[in-house]
Amino acid sequence: MSGATDHGGLEVLDFAECERLLTNEYVGRVAFVDAGEPIILPVNYVYRDGVVLIRTAEGSKLDAASMRSVVAFEIDGHDDEYHSGWSVLVVGVMEELDGDEEREYENLPLTPWAKAVPRTHWLRIRADRITGRRLP
Amino acid sequence: MSGATDHGGLEVLDFAECERLLTNEYVGRVAFVDAGEPIILPVNYVYRDGVVLIRTAEGSKLDAASMRSVVAFEIDGHDDEYHSGWSVLVVGVMEELDGDEEREYENLPLTPWAKAVPRTHWLRIRADRITGRRLP
Repeated sequence: MSGATDHGGLEVLDFAECERLLTNEYVGRVAFVDAGEPIILPVNYVYRDGVVLIRTAEGSKLDAASMRSVVAFEIDGHDDEYHSGWSVLVVGVMEELDGDEEREYENLPLTPWAKAVPRTHWLRIRADRITGRRLP
Repeated sequence: MSGATDHGGLEVLDFAECERLLTNEYVGRVAFVDAGEPIILPVNYVYRDGVVLIRTAEGSKLDAASMRSVVAFEIDGHDDEYHSGWSVLVVGVMEELDGDEEREYENLPLTPWAKAVPRTHWLRIRADRITGRRLP
């Protein structure tokens, strides 16, 4: 813990704690601007070394990746009883992997939960910035 | 249930089901563009009649509201064992309430979880569009 708090009184998580949470979780949300409006979509993902990997079919996520859009990726958790919670935010460019890059990651435990339409495209969010907050 | 599926093979939730989920949940995430970059922030909220209400302190959410930005608001849930999940997305303008409008809502169970800095500003996201998906 860094011990710092932000303007809203939330504890600021240090980078190591953000990476620990990103590594342990496997469902997050990606947000980007689609046709002029913000959109948030849940995804299952794997985090490795500053990179968030997701798999997708055709659609708005792939469109955003083809434009190398800057996106936000978020994970969070909360405890209803204690009204506590935490969140980690990753901001960076989302882009599609090519075949060689996919092979680099193919042994990662990244199986799309949605099976009806194959998720054949691998997308990478390369973190420019990783920040986290906790509400004690 | 509408019985329809989207391009990714996910079941499309009908409006009544989206409203039921929005009414039952109380933690979601709001996404908007802040200083040119997308951001996702977790919030506790109350949903009533096409409106998502949140309370906030000074900061990027209040800034977005003062500009009457179009934002995305999302809730989701997932079942780790069955790799199933659902999400509801609300898109609309976020704006700050004035005193009269606040009084209209003051009996709602909307208590900020964060206590260190008072959340004195009430924000409303007026839904232009509510959509939901489920991964069976």
